[in-house]
Amino acid sequence: MELLKRAIENHGKVLPGNVIKVGSFLNNQLDISLLYKMGEDLKEHFKTKKIDKILTIEASGIALATLTAERIGCNVVVAKKTRTANVDGDVFAAECFSYTHKNMNTLIVDKEYIKWGEKVLIVDDFLAHGEAVKACMSILKQAGADLVGVAIAIEKGFQGAGDDLRAHGIDVYSLAIVDDMSQGKISFR
Amino acid sequence: MELLKRAIENHGKVLPGNVIKVGSFLNNQLDISLLYKMGEDLKEHFKTKKIDKILTIEASGIALATLTAERIGCNVVVAKKTRTANVDGDVFAAECFSYTHKNMNTLIVDKEYIKWGEKVLIVDDFLAHGEAVKACMSILKQAGADLVGVAIAIEKGFQGAGDDLRAHGIDVYSLAIVDDMSQGKISFR
Repeated sequence: MELLKRAIENHGKVLPGNVIKVGSFLNNQLDISLLYKMGEDLKEHFKTKKIDKILTIEASGIALATLTAERIGCNVVVAKKTRTANVDGDVFAAECFSYTHKNMNTLIVDKEYIKWGEKVLIVDDFLAHGEAVKACMSILKQAGADLVGVAIAIEKGFQGAGDDLRAHGIDVYSLAIVDDMSQGKISFR
Repeated sequence: MELLKRAIENHGKVLPGNVIKVGSFLNNQLDISLLYKMGEDLKEHFKTKKIDKILTIEASGIALATLTAERIGCNVVVAKKTRTANVDGDVFAAECFSYTHKNMNTLIVDKEYIKWGEKVLIVDDFLAHGEAVKACMSILKQAGADLVGVAIAIEKGFQGAGDDLRAHGIDVYSLAIVDDMSQGKISFR
């Protein structure tokens, strides 16, 4: 998606450790007009598929998931990173390592919110090593739900998880794929 | 807002410690159609005021803030609860105690994202003791930005912070105010 690539070029910052800081429009400050158009683009890509629900991960996937769901006309389930005082009852849980925060998280979804046979689209802001997406896929498998596909704002193509999932027949659609940022300059696929 | 009150009555659960679990439509699973209408109601209430930006708090304020901002036509700034690998540079910071999680958080906003003189609406899912809202107000004060008002999904009226802020002349608008839940049954103002 050209608009997102231009935003990354103009406002993204390359930080040490293969981190792209896109806080000014995607994470910390949300450019709602851009996110709305990203949601429309995701809707267009998946338009031939039935989608009952979107599954995303707190916190930085929520805004894109919300606007995509508003366009598609479905609800969103947010996988939480820790068990909190207001999660009770049985949950689906899957471990994943965060390369950003350098720690293990347990993603948790209340069993009430994903049902057997539901068609679920995973939406997240970044796809790098694929840890979070694989944890979401584990949760869908536990629930007996069907994975429609994976919709991502920015894929770090050079870290391989996106292509690995595609090789397994999964419809991974990323609005921008970064293939190189090793010299501090971002090159898109 | 009647629609939200009905959702709380039909799907909310009262848990020990004055916790209302509204995970099935507001926090963990997001009823996007309801949140969209909540955003329209918030827009209507604040329609006579200029709003440059919405400030919310990760993670559970993001969905309502996003849909409200989409209706109003402004961007959202998300106050983060911890310093992460992709927050660099100078930040505004304010301490607040979380009664839900029983811990102290530092709310952080990059200084780039809130500017002197900007008109900012605070949006969050809950208002109880007012800790998070007061931390956001501190951040706006540090930035020299102007507080337009405070927009809340569910206010726990019996905990007093909303009325205290109103007594100080702040436009606090809550879509549902719970005045009692001591017997396990929710009474609205």
